[in-house]
Amino acid sequence: MGKYGRLGKLTPVSEVLEKLRKMCKIKPGIVEKEITETIGYISAETVKAPYNFPPYNRSAVDGYAVRAEDTYGASTLNPIVLKVKGFMHTSDKPEKYFVGKGECVEVTTGTPLPIGANAVVMVEYTRRISEDTVEIYAPVAPLQNVSIIGEDVKKGEIVVRKGEVIRPWHVGLLATLNISKIRVYDSLKAAVFGVGDELVPLGSKVGPGKIVSSTLYLVESFLKEMNVNVIIKGILPDNINVIAENVRKALKEADMVFTTGGTSIGVKDYTVKAVRKLNPELLIHGLAIKPGRPAGIAVVSGKPVFTLSGYPVAALTVLLAVYECFHYALHGSKPPPKPKVKALLTRRVYVEPGIRGYVRVRVFRKNNEFYVEPLAITGSGILSTMVKGNGLLIVPEDVEGFDEGDVVEVELTSPIV
Amino acid sequence: MGKYGRLGKLTPVSEVLEKLRKMCKIKPGIVEKEITETIGYISAETVKAPYNFPPYNRSAVDGYAVRAEDTYGASTLNPIVLKVKGFMHTSDKPEKYFVGKGECVEVTTGTPLPIGANAVVMVEYTRRISEDTVEIYAPVAPLQNVSIIGEDVKKGEIVVRKGEVIRPWHVGLLATLNISKIRVYDSLKAAVFGVGDELVPLGSKVGPGKIVSSTLYLVESFLKEMNVNVIIKGILPDNINVIAENVRKALKEADMVFTTGGTSIGVKDYTVKAVRKLNPELLIHGLAIKPGRPAGIAVVSGKPVFTLSGYPVAALTVLLAVYECFHYALHGSKPPPKPKVKALLTRRVYVEPGIRGYVRVRVFRKNNEFYVEPLAITGSGILSTMVKGNGLLIVPEDVEGFDEGDVVEVELTSPIV
Repeated sequence: MGKYGRLGKLTPVSEVLEKLRKMCKIKPGIVEKEITETIGYISAETVKAPYNFPPYNRSAVDGYAVRAEDTYGASTLNPIVLKVKGFMHTSDKPEKYFVGKGECVEVTTGTPLPIGANAVVMVEYTRRISEDTVEIYAPVAPLQNVSIIGEDVKKGEIVVRKGEVIRPWHVGLLATLNISKIRVYDSLKAAVFGVGDELVPLGSKVGPGKIVSSTLYLVESFLKEMNVNVIIKGILPDNINVIAENVRKALKEADMVFTTGGTSIGVKDYTVKAVRKLNPELLIHGLAIKPGRPAGIAVVSGKPVFTLSGYPVAALTVLLAVYECFHYALHGSKPPPKPKVKALLTRRVYVEPGIRGYVRVRVFRKNNEFYVEPLAITGSGILSTMVKGNGLLIVPEDVEGFDEGDVVEVELTSPIV
Repeated sequence: MGKYGRLGKLTPVSEVLEKLRKMCKIKPGIVEKEITETIGYISAETVKAPYNFPPYNRSAVDGYAVRAEDTYGASTLNPIVLKVKGFMHTSDKPEKYFVGKGECVEVTTGTPLPIGANAVVMVEYTRRISEDTVEIYAPVAPLQNVSIIGEDVKKGEIVVRKGEVIRPWHVGLLATLNISKIRVYDSLKAAVFGVGDELVPLGSKVGPGKIVSSTLYLVESFLKEMNVNVIIKGILPDNINVIAENVRKALKEADMVFTTGGTSIGVKDYTVKAVRKLNPELLIHGLAIKPGRPAGIAVVSGKPVFTLSGYPVAALTVLLAVYECFHYALHGSKPPPKPKVKALLTRRVYVEPGIRGYVRVRVFRKNNEFYVEPLAITGSGILSTMVKGNGLLIVPEDVEGFDEGDVVEVELTSPIV
């Protein structure tokens, strides 16, 4: 009987995600924010352009706004002379001048096209010969050097899609259209508990039998990085009733609860027992993932409860494999793309079939080739490998591992040094 | 003479970066923060482990702490019986029991090893036959099932390196070592100005000759995403003296200034002229980058001034190509790895030799192959291509472009749909 024999059947990640999606009833709140405050939030609405942009034809260059047909045949040897009616600037209105036959108006980039003009000759192809005359050395076609109405965005086009993570270009485009506020999903609220009689908060006195509840802070930081608000955090003793009561109370305020520790399969196993006391609609104990197998995933009163290992890497793996996907799916969104690199494996990696493995690796460059060195295949407690390494090699469920020399794809967690 | 003829020689990005690094005298401030508040900040110190972790030998499993030599020869057919001296929990101290010859102590995962014990037999290979005796069915070697002192981190090992961006695992490892605060670089402070008589702030009345200073908000959002504090923002008229005065004043409070607009080469070119009035140590006008060529990069009193185009994509390109690299270099850091994908180009892309091109593209999947569709090669004003697309194809200076069917590498800006 193996270490995890008592877990029984291990549930694949895909099945966990499907069940979570079906059984969770939480709905992220919606909040209206100034667009400059929305970076990193997920849009709760699809925003369409209320009008065309540019809202009028405007010059794309510095030069002379003309009637294109007046310039036909112009060349350096045979310049055409036009009458300059005046100068127009970006802040002027099109009505300032009317360009008639043989006439033009000097304009700067971004200036609305004066009435009557339909093209612009770049200043480089002109020479001002007097206050009110200019020589044109090249012809222009109608609309040449003109940014036409709706060239950037047409009225009704989608500017931000519901479920998209807001990036700077969304803010720029919304500003272009003078949309100052949009509705985004408010941050989810989480409670995070460290469970264990030996655990103390950061900054306490430590020693034999007293260690910092470090996985609690790892989970808190991971959630913060995902824009989740940790509204409750604390350390609970190895006492099923106390854990159950705290999780129950936390679920009244928070959208979800994370516990770390107390998931081992021997004498203890407190957190899963505590969650069972809360009559969960769903309780999965044992994931087909390594490290992270002893984790539990539950749904209590429509809200998810993640009972993670006290071992930091085991907890992190479940956050990456399960929570991240769940989080984006809940918002009708997709996880942002991850930085990846293909490289040659320096050493064999083995994971039991049917289990998804997360192998911490170091990617390095040698003689212009990338190599992947596995740092730890087991050792769910060895967090330092995440700091020494710069990537994760994910071994899918239907693969037993990779051989030395195989080209594998690695998710980079920090730059290749 | 081309559109940018008056810019003269265009400066390559690498040269701009080198000059900025040499001539900028700004030093990011250093601030001590609670580790849970440091996510996304860059570490200003190299932190080494003050002690080993685990700080003592502890059990890696639930079972019985034994003297390994007492278990040699044990099997299911020939169990060895040991005397159970008691139970030890994670919060107990090693001195609670002494394990002598023929003795053992029941332990849970994470429990300090009692004095005298040197290995642990997993509970699965034992059977408790009475209150104070247990049968052992398998032998263990010394240190088997024991997490030994320093297994995760050894005293003096590096936990966080100066210049590293703090991620959740750094926080977890710092917490493990009971380090509650570290020194990080404080956010840089920036001033951002929109320049143009036609520009109005978000939420104002717009119309012909009155448009929102949208690139200002794009730049502000980009900087926020990079953890830069925008402490001054405003809109300035097309007036060289007013621009110069505002930039000069802003440089007293801010670490750097960004202007957008007023960089065109014809009648205006206000911002570059304004910066020239401030006696810059460095003034580069015209970058070998497309879009973004008319940008100016200056250093005034040791602080950088970026005079960006009013065209959003041109401004964004310079932020990506120049500011981002400068930002990380200033902190002794490297940009985080970018998500990239290799895919087949659906249409030819051409950029003049010597110029680095940033082509907005859409990456899509068809019949299990990835394809890259260029959305716009020119059009520095067409921000909607950043929203319609999901990536950037960067054409290096020494390449004239790519052909249809070429396999190219694209930086993904949002997920592939």
